[in-house]
Amino acid sequence: MRIARFSLDGNVAFGVVEGDELDIIKGHPFAGVERSGQRIPLDKVRLLPPVLPNKVVAIGRNYAEHARELGNDVPDVPVTFFKPSTSVAGPGDPIAYPGFSSEVHYEAELAVVIGRMCKEVPRARVRDVVLGYTCANDVTARDVQRAENQWARAKGFDTSCPLGPWVETEVDPADLAVQCTVNGEQRQLGRTSEMVRSVEDLVVHITEAMTLLPGDVILTGTPAGVGPLHVGDEVAVTIEGIGTLTNKVIKRD
Amino acid sequence: MRIARFSLDGNVAFGVVEGDELDIIKGHPFAGVERSGQRIPLDKVRLLPPVLPNKVVAIGRNYAEHARELGNDVPDVPVTFFKPSTSVAGPGDPIAYPGFSSEVHYEAELAVVIGRMCKEVPRARVRDVVLGYTCANDVTARDVQRAENQWARAKGFDTSCPLGPWVETEVDPADLAVQCTVNGEQRQLGRTSEMVRSVEDLVVHITEAMTLLPGDVILTGTPAGVGPLHVGDEVAVTIEGIGTLTNKVIKRD
Repeated sequence: MRIARFSLDGNVAFGVVEGDELDIIKGHPFAGVERSGQRIPLDKVRLLPPVLPNKVVAIGRNYAEHARELGNDVPDVPVTFFKPSTSVAGPGDPIAYPGFSSEVHYEAELAVVIGRMCKEVPRARVRDVVLGYTCANDVTARDVQRAENQWARAKGFDTSCPLGPWVETEVDPADLAVQCTVNGEQRQLGRTSEMVRSVEDLVVHITEAMTLLPGDVILTGTPAGVGPLHVGDEVAVTIEGIGTLTNKVIKRD
Repeated sequence: MRIARFSLDGNVAFGVVEGDELDIIKGHPFAGVERSGQRIPLDKVRLLPPVLPNKVVAIGRNYAEHARELGNDVPDVPVTFFKPSTSVAGPGDPIAYPGFSSEVHYEAELAVVIGRMCKEVPRARVRDVVLGYTCANDVTARDVQRAENQWARAKGFDTSCPLGPWVETEVDPADLAVQCTVNGEQRQLGRTSEMVRSVEDLVVHITEAMTLLPGDVILTGTPAGVGPLHVGDEVAVTIEGIGTLTNKVIKRD
């Protein structure tokens, strides 16, 4: 099932995507999906970030080849950092090139959407706390990341976390192709089976320390091939079995 | 003016603290404080974290003597990291010693409470976006901080961000004594005038990259004297002109 969040005539709701239509959900999908039977053409709505995370917990250097391309080793423990709710953007939303950087990179990633409040999740229960999966772009000011010890500004600026287009609840995350294109040209192509730590590993590791809330998101790291974005570029993250998240890079106002 | 957030008989509200009483505020204090005239004795309510931040943006190594005590230089740019909303605790709430650390430290800090949504704040406008100041304890799993490249787990675990007891809206943050005691014994004593970067510097630096929301909090770094907490300890952060934030360290359930 594909669950989208959308706005139409100023109202925000969730819906189940079926072909070219949305079947509107009553309330939110975290307590179980109740369809209304009210259908709208997908091209009539504006898709929003499929959830509004309270926090995004992101993992660095989780693909060995990507760690190496930036001159890093695969770390003994996962590199774990936050992207704030104010960094989240939706499918089709612009990525605003920040004024404090001159080297902004794309990073295509599988995103895990948490479905229920959880802490200290045992490995066998991880699937129970996951609502589904979506595409993410962990947009990064690479020059600022190199210059600053902690990455709050480099990876937390406004619009640095596009998510979407929807949450796919039925896909198995173990071995999916993750692709990034810029202006239609392929820049990254990896498989989630190359991840150093699996989705299960990451949920266990993160919830050992902190509570995750419904709608919180985990970014699972990016495969090799990261590179620059420029104003005017159209960047697309496609994950097998989920869909494509497309965003255009604009000049800041 | 001192603005507290509290619960009474299951209801949550804000109030202005005057002596031993609270004057209840209509709604929330971000759009201007409207007193109800309804007064309650302070000892009848449970004080809560004075705001519910969407994000806490924290600064490391902002007191030179503290940077040196951990073997670090004062950084060229502020070390900027996030503590998530799930790490926030209130005055009197327990700090739950996390199972994944055996070296948890206190860090007394002045906290800035943001009063209005803001981005790219010019230095001269910083005071306009600040609602006031409170006390914070940037509780840190020091062993985990040393082991992990990014500090999301070391400084983001549940209850690692006690805030309170209230927001003081009238104090000048330029030169306040910041003290930490453990079981009544003084461990830290610094002055905010020793901060490498001032409140103005930090708001400008952070909002260059990201939007701050009403209720978001900035932690401004800790003076020298950090050290361990143990189960059973009572840790108190006192800031001149604001008040005292007290929390007890408990064993995790």
